[in-house]
Amino acid sequence: MSGCIFCRVVAGTAPSTKVYEDDVLLAFLDIRPITRGHTLVIPKTHATDLNDLEPALGARLFAFGHRLAKAVRRGDLAADGANLVINDGKAAFQTVDHVHLHVVPRRSGDKLAFARGLVMRRPYDRESAAAAIRSGLDRLAEEEEETSA
Amino acid sequence: MSGCIFCRVVAGTAPSTKVYEDDVLLAFLDIRPITRGHTLVIPKTHATDLNDLEPALGARLFAFGHRLAKAVRRGDLAADGANLVINDGKAAFQTVDHVHLHVVPRRSGDKLAFARGLVMRRPYDRESAAAAIRSGLDRLAEEEEETSA
Ligand SMILES: [Zn+2]
Ligand SMILES: [Zn+2]
Repeated sequence: MSGCIFCRVVAGTAPSTKVYEDDVLLAFLDIRPITRGHTLVIPKTHATDLNDLEPALGARLFAFGHRLAKAVRRGDLAADGANLVINDGKAAFQTVDHVHLHVVPRRSGDKLAFARGLVMRRPYDRESAAAAIRSGLDRLAEEEEETSA
Repeated sequence: MSGCIFCRVVAGTAPSTKVYEDDVLLAFLDIRPITRGHTLVIPKTHATDLNDLEPALGARLFAFGHRLAKAVRRGDLAADGANLVINDGKAAFQTVDHVHLHVVPRRSGDKLAFARGLVMRRPYDRESAAAAIRSGLDRLAEEEEETSA
C-alpha cells in the first residue's frame, strides 16, 4: 500500500520518531500528540481496520499496548495512567486507514492540558519523549527479570 | 473485592445485561451507554488497572474486544465501526477500579448522536441491543467456520 502513510513509516520512506519495533509491530510518536509521549502502535503489514486484522496479529498489537500502558507509568515519563484507544472505522473517527492503537499517557490533574491537547495537538520534544518511554519499557523488562529470577 | 461493583456483576449480586461470558471474561452493556450496544468487557477476577492485570488475561480481554469490534459490524446492530477504549488509571478518567474495555458501536453519520451520548448517557432498549450484539457474534463464528471448512 504505497499510498498509506503508515506503510511508508514502516518502510522508512516517511519519517517517524520510533519508540519500539519488532518483527511485526512498530510503535512511534503521534506527530500531533494529545499529551507528551502519545504513541501509535501499528502492525507492520497493512490492515485497514480491525475487521481486516488477523486475530494473532491483533493479539500482538494489544499485548504491546498493554506493555506500553505499564511502561509509561515507569521510567522518565512518570505517567499516572493512559488512555488506550482504537478508533475502528471512519464512522468511529479513524483518520488513517491502517489500524493503529493510541496510547495517550496521562498525569493526575492534567484534565485541562488533555482537553487543550485534543484541540491543539502540537508536538512536544520528540526525542526526549521517545527516550522517556523507552526507559519505561527497559524498567518494565528489568522488573520482569527480577520477579522471574 | 466485595466493594467492587464489577466483581458484584460477576458474582451476580448486581444486575447486568450480559452479552457474552466465558471462563475468564464477562461482557455486559454499560448502564450509561454512549451509543446503542455500548459494551464493557472485564476480566472476571479483580484487577484494578492494566498495571495489575496479568498479560495472559489481558490478551484474552483484548482478543474478545477485537471479536466484538468485528461482531458489531455484523448481525442486527449493523454498526459501521467502533471505538475501543481503556481508560487506565484515575488520571485517565477510569471511574470503576476494575479494568474494563469499552466497545462503543458507531454508525456512519452518528457524530452528533455520539456527542449527545457522551453527555446524556441514557439507556437504550437493553435486551434487544444485547441480542443484536449476540447475533453478530454468532454471524462471526459462522463466517469463521465457513472459511476454515
Ligand atoms: Zn498501511
Ligand atoms: Zn472488581
